[in-house]
Amino acid sequence: MTSPVGLHRVVEPAGVLPQGAWRLDASPEIAANEVRIRVERLNLDAASFRQLWEKHAGDGDAVRAEVREIVAARGKMQNPVTGSGGMLIGTVEEVGRRSPLQLKPGDRVATLVSLTLTPLAITDGLARWDGRSEQVPCDGHAILFARSIAAVLPDDEDPQLSLAVLDVCGAPALTGRVVSQYVAERAREGDPRPVTVAVIGGAGKSGSLSLAAARRAGAARTVGVVPVAAERDALAAVGLADVVALADARDPVALSTAVTTALGVPADVTVVCVDVPGCEHGAVLATADGGTVIFFSMATSFSAAALGAEGLAADVTMLVGNGYVPGHAELALGLLRAEPGVRRLFESRLAAD
Amino acid sequence: MTSPVGLHRVVEPAGVLPQGAWRLDASPEIAANEVRIRVERLNLDAASFRQLWEKHAGDGDAVRAEVREIVAARGKMQNPVTGSGGMLIGTVEEVGRRSPLQLKPGDRVATLVSLTLTPLAITDGLARWDGRSEQVPCDGHAILFARSIAAVLPDDEDPQLSLAVLDVCGAPALTGRVVSQYVAERAREGDPRPVTVAVIGGAGKSGSLSLAAARRAGAARTVGVVPVAAERDALAAVGLADVVALADARDPVALSTAVTTALGVPADVTVVCVDVPGCEHGAVLATADGGTVIFFSMATSFSAAALGAEGLAADVTMLVGNGYVPGHAELALGLLRAEPGVRRLFESRLAAD
Repeated sequence: MTSPVGLHRVVEPAGVLPQGAWRLDASPEIAANEVRIRVERLNLDAASFRQLWEKHAGDGDAVRAEVREIVAARGKMQNPVTGSGGMLIGTVEEVGRRSPLQLKPGDRVATLVSLTLTPLAITDGLARWDGRSEQVPCDGHAILFARSIAAVLPDDEDPQLSLAVLDVCGAPALTGRVVSQYVAERAREGDPRPVTVAVIGGAGKSGSLSLAAARRAGAARTVGVVPVAAERDALAAVGLADVVALADARDPVALSTAVTTALGVPADVTVVCVDVPGCEHGAVLATADGGTVIFFSMATSFSAAALGAEGLAADVTMLVGNGYVPGHAELALGLLRAEPGVRRLFESRLAAD
Repeated sequence: MTSPVGLHRVVEPAGVLPQGAWRLDASPEIAANEVRIRVERLNLDAASFRQLWEKHAGDGDAVRAEVREIVAARGKMQNPVTGSGGMLIGTVEEVGRRSPLQLKPGDRVATLVSLTLTPLAITDGLARWDGRSEQVPCDGHAILFARSIAAVLPDDEDPQLSLAVLDVCGAPALTGRVVSQYVAERAREGDPRPVTVAVIGGAGKSGSLSLAAARRAGAARTVGVVPVAAERDALAAVGLADVVALADARDPVALSTAVTTALGVPADVTVVCVDVPGCEHGAVLATADGGTVIFFSMATSFSAAALGAEGLAADVTMLVGNGYVPGHAELALGLLRAEPGVRRLFESRLAAD
């Protein structure tokens, strides 16, 4: 039985997971539970590209040569310095008869698992890339395992818009799931209190989708917290939150006051979507006893969250935002389609990039 | 209304939480929701004591002088270099009429919130302390806020044993709560599958209590995972787990294989109690789809957990272990009393220290 997480593709060191491996076997023959993708473009992780760019002082040819060498040596695109990868776009070429991914040949897909664990071979020498951008036109193939994740790109959407949504699709899915649980539990217990939700960083990509998902899951009152007036105006204009509040998320007293004032009570569910350190205590303080904080920010400090809640004697559930929830890609693309406010925020963000 | 988290005691800088403050007001007059403790002993945090000890090259008088100066300057015992505090033991002296802590004058208590946020004044100049140990005999007073936590020490237990249990009492409380939720949900849905639990680091303080709490909460099958044969034998001898397995928690494949072999299936709830980095992927891989990982180790990397679960397409809930759950002290002391296996492990650990 071939490993669903790809252990059989690990060449060295033996016995580790593909992400931790130095080298993967990227040969094109697939096992019964695998899928082969014809690669069309790599999106390098921003930190990885920046490291290569700075190392080679902006020499695009040298950057290209190093990416080629990394993939040839490792069988995957994982920057040895930053440890990071990126994702890819391509077309499904062959599907093993026992693959559970529900893909079919010809589907145009984006991989939602990192390049750091995806077997990859480049066959065109990256001839069409100038080495000067994170977007890498590329011919070659990649392998998906049984437990990989790939999303079919909608034909009728700008692919850049779809990718921007897919990049953060775990956040609305988990937010929706948690809010639904509160709504169902209150209904079961005959508790008439409305479910309240605060999204810190509500005008951003994951934040705006989370606000839309919270409302769809039955949140009765939502607040989006943003740090500056321009974001406040942008979020207020699209109507994704019942209230928009301005506060510095690193200031626990200011943040909790803003949330409690906006909602009338502390939040049942607080979602942290801002990538700045130091938001843990404010998020805990803004959350009701028995409530839940979901941390999506990679700047979250595990110990600050744990010790902060203890120091505040706060009976809150704190979740590490898992980027994978079954159905997350479809849910997020559905929100883009159904919510004009989400689309407007994403389009203006893409236009500004 | 006086702040339940002690904002009114913050002197500088204004507007921050007590833990983040440079200086607190430690005056002995209490507000209606506060409690004053007559202090009997401080237990300095190990990292804090070590820093002071090394700075003063083992000169106990200099260490004592600096602790005295820190408390005089800051109104709390928070080491300015390590940022850490410790806890204290004392006797309740006065209880404000609106304190929710359910303490009464004369109760002998341990504070379960950190000294870093507890107003403290020393009145004996630490005359009975030689500056050579983390245990600081001390006369003075400390203030508890409405949202502080203090546990009454049982008269009939060795105080050192009680303190060792109270130090980790959040772990069994949260483990018990999560396991109970799985048991209740399966019962509600008529799902006959037994609830399975893996505790990584099952022979340690938080681990052994978590195993006992999981079983009491209705876990049908439990495994304690330990890294060395001596711990395996110790844990097996006390019977707190259905199976004891030997595995390196930093090796994802080895860990998940050990858990799945021991339980027959992946764990519904995996509890990480080992203070070594790199256990995130193994814990995720050892957990069933729809299961929960509770991270109690301060060595947990937030990003390794988030990215690991995503990379494995693992639909698991990941919890930041909150040290506070209502009733946690009573639950843990009750387990010490009711479970001879817990007592034996704790006593042999204290004897070894």
